[in-house]
Amino acid sequence: MTEKQLSEVSVPARIAAPDEGITQDELHLAGRNHAMPLEALRYDITPVGLHYLLVHYDIPDVDPDRWRLVIDGRVGRTVEYTLADLWARPKVTRTVTFECAGNGRALLTPRPLSQPWLDGAVGTARWGGTPLAPLLREAGIGADAVDVVFTGRDHGIERGVEQDFTRGLPLAEALREDVLLAYEMNDAPLPPQHGAPLRLVVPGWYGMAQVKWLRGITLTNCPFDGFQQTTAYRLKQGADEIGEPVTRIMPRALMIPPGFPDFMSRVRVVDAGVHVVTGRAWSGRSAVRAVEFSADDGRTWAAAELGARAGGEGDDFAWYAWRFVWRTDRPGSHRLRVRATDAEGVSQPREQAWNRQGMANNMAQCVEAIVR
Amino acid sequence: MTEKQLSEVSVPARIAAPDEGITQDELHLAGRNHAMPLEALRYDITPVGLHYLLVHYDIPDVDPDRWRLVIDGRVGRTVEYTLADLWARPKVTRTVTFECAGNGRALLTPRPLSQPWLDGAVGTARWGGTPLAPLLREAGIGADAVDVVFTGRDHGIERGVEQDFTRGLPLAEALREDVLLAYEMNDAPLPPQHGAPLRLVVPGWYGMAQVKWLRGITLTNCPFDGFQQTTAYRLKQGADEIGEPVTRIMPRALMIPPGFPDFMSRVRVVDAGVHVVTGRAWSGRSAVRAVEFSADDGRTWAAAELGARAGGEGDDFAWYAWRFVWRTDRPGSHRLRVRATDAEGVSQPREQAWNRQGMANNMAQCVEAIVR
Repeated sequence: MTEKQLSEVSVPARIAAPDEGITQDELHLAGRNHAMPLEALRYDITPVGLHYLLVHYDIPDVDPDRWRLVIDGRVGRTVEYTLADLWARPKVTRTVTFECAGNGRALLTPRPLSQPWLDGAVGTARWGGTPLAPLLREAGIGADAVDVVFTGRDHGIERGVEQDFTRGLPLAEALREDVLLAYEMNDAPLPPQHGAPLRLVVPGWYGMAQVKWLRGITLTNCPFDGFQQTTAYRLKQGADEIGEPVTRIMPRALMIPPGFPDFMSRVRVVDAGVHVVTGRAWSGRSAVRAVEFSADDGRTWAAAELGARAGGEGDDFAWYAWRFVWRTDRPGSHRLRVRATDAEGVSQPREQAWNRQGMANNMAQCVEAIVR
Repeated sequence: MTEKQLSEVSVPARIAAPDEGITQDELHLAGRNHAMPLEALRYDITPVGLHYLLVHYDIPDVDPDRWRLVIDGRVGRTVEYTLADLWARPKVTRTVTFECAGNGRALLTPRPLSQPWLDGAVGTARWGGTPLAPLLREAGIGADAVDVVFTGRDHGIERGVEQDFTRGLPLAEALREDVLLAYEMNDAPLPPQHGAPLRLVVPGWYGMAQVKWLRGITLTNCPFDGFQQTTAYRLKQGADEIGEPVTRIMPRALMIPPGFPDFMSRVRVVDAGVHVVTGRAWSGRSAVRAVEFSADDGRTWAAAELGARAGGEGDDFAWYAWRFVWRTDRPGSHRLRVRATDAEGVSQPREQAWNRQGMANNMAQCVEAIVR
């Protein structure tokens, strides 16, 4: 190995060259992090190990007995909690659909180099924990507080900036009654890779807001300007733009690919006849109002039947079931697509508009099938 | 999409062209299947969701109430079991390290196109279930039986061959007392992605032998010649060779990469000083006898301290802990390596010998680190 400096290793983000294959760096990330296999859309609650996972740096080695949560900054008094303290507080369980802000990135042309998601960076879990707002109120929210900054224990360097993963949330969002500090996933202790012993859950927001391995909460009197807020997770075109922040999840529907797969291409083989195609749809902005299916690559669309939302009362950001009865008698190749529309009328494009970090993509899923 | 035929989609295996980047097909597999993040080497037992996962086709949707296991072929009588029948039988729990036969494939040059593993396709679980041998004996093993053929419920097409995933095991291996039909993983019900409701566990063998979603066991009077036995999972150079079968796991050691990572390159940043580097080592052939560490890309090696094997009495194929105290005072780039040697004297090469399917690779791990 030639002698490398850190400055040659931790470099600015880059866009793939035309026809540049997936790189070893992208593969390294793809091997660690994983999407939800789409057949797992069959489960209301995604089983642990099938829920998508993105770890920015390393999964930290946290000793739960020595772990503390500190709440400080623009508060009346700095407070510190042990896990036992949090377990003793009121417990709430919420069903929430999470999606990575970079879902779909590897489908963009040209491709931004980062975690190379196709379309499965999603999952729905039952998160159990204690509501955040009462903790903040007990600490005493400063009259000048504007952001609540959450710091995790995962440590790394990114584009030259050494950091613990840290994100801010506007105070009004942090005070929503459905925001949790979660210590359980699917009615079991939070697994290490999903943030044990404690993580943030902000229903409706993309995954970057759901800070894992939480160690600190700081109220600030000015908007948080850390790396993950002002450099990463921005919607922008040019490298020098500030861009717009990534916030809530865009509407999306996904189908369980019908038939069975070819091993290497993952193209589906489907027998001619009647197929009940099912899947899920969600939006972090409002309720899902419609799901449509297309068997001709999005030239024509037909309404799918929208079913129940997972979870219960108040689980506004859990996914909805849907089904479509697809009759096919034409052998040969088909491109199946599905799209959701939410209550604000926001839907999914057939072609993905490009942005430099490959964020908040929601192009309608495309499944290649060969009918026989 | 141009009109495609199945024969154009499910095609023979191929080797990447020189400098051909990772393909979208490989990425699709890498997004579904996942390696164990190497920091998870810290756990004696790999938590669910961190254990490596390879699903050949789709995770099948199995109704446990309707599920049956049939044992037939060269037996005295065909027998059928419900899950309750199996749960009522003697239960055994074994700690076993699994590794995918294709681990390391994406490090080969040229690269065989398949699931593009780097080096983390490994994990160790506590598998709970009932021993296989008594079930076979109760069915009555035919005097002419030679192979025991295990069929899973996962269905797909591969290189033009439609199939349920099926593998054979020589009768003597199937009758080993440590071979289990497992319905638990880490003391909880087997998760869907790891083969629920029942899977085979053959300690010491690569992952292809550990048939998931098991539905049938057939004793045959001739060696099994199905696709996964005679076409896939062969050690060979040329496309037309028959090759040698892939069987037991070659020795391997892995380290937890020290320091912390750069997000995109995963290169490690390490402070000069003393680092206790730890990891695991295993072999499916015999006990691990030595682990060695190199901080100069394998030019010189020093003995690591070999620790305890995970699991208990008789868990011969669980991984061993090891540690090495690495003192570094030279800033700049380093290539860290580790290698294991087993009781048969089999060790790990510095350069990987090539084979056409990228199977049974065990090149010594290489971690790039920058000391500061």
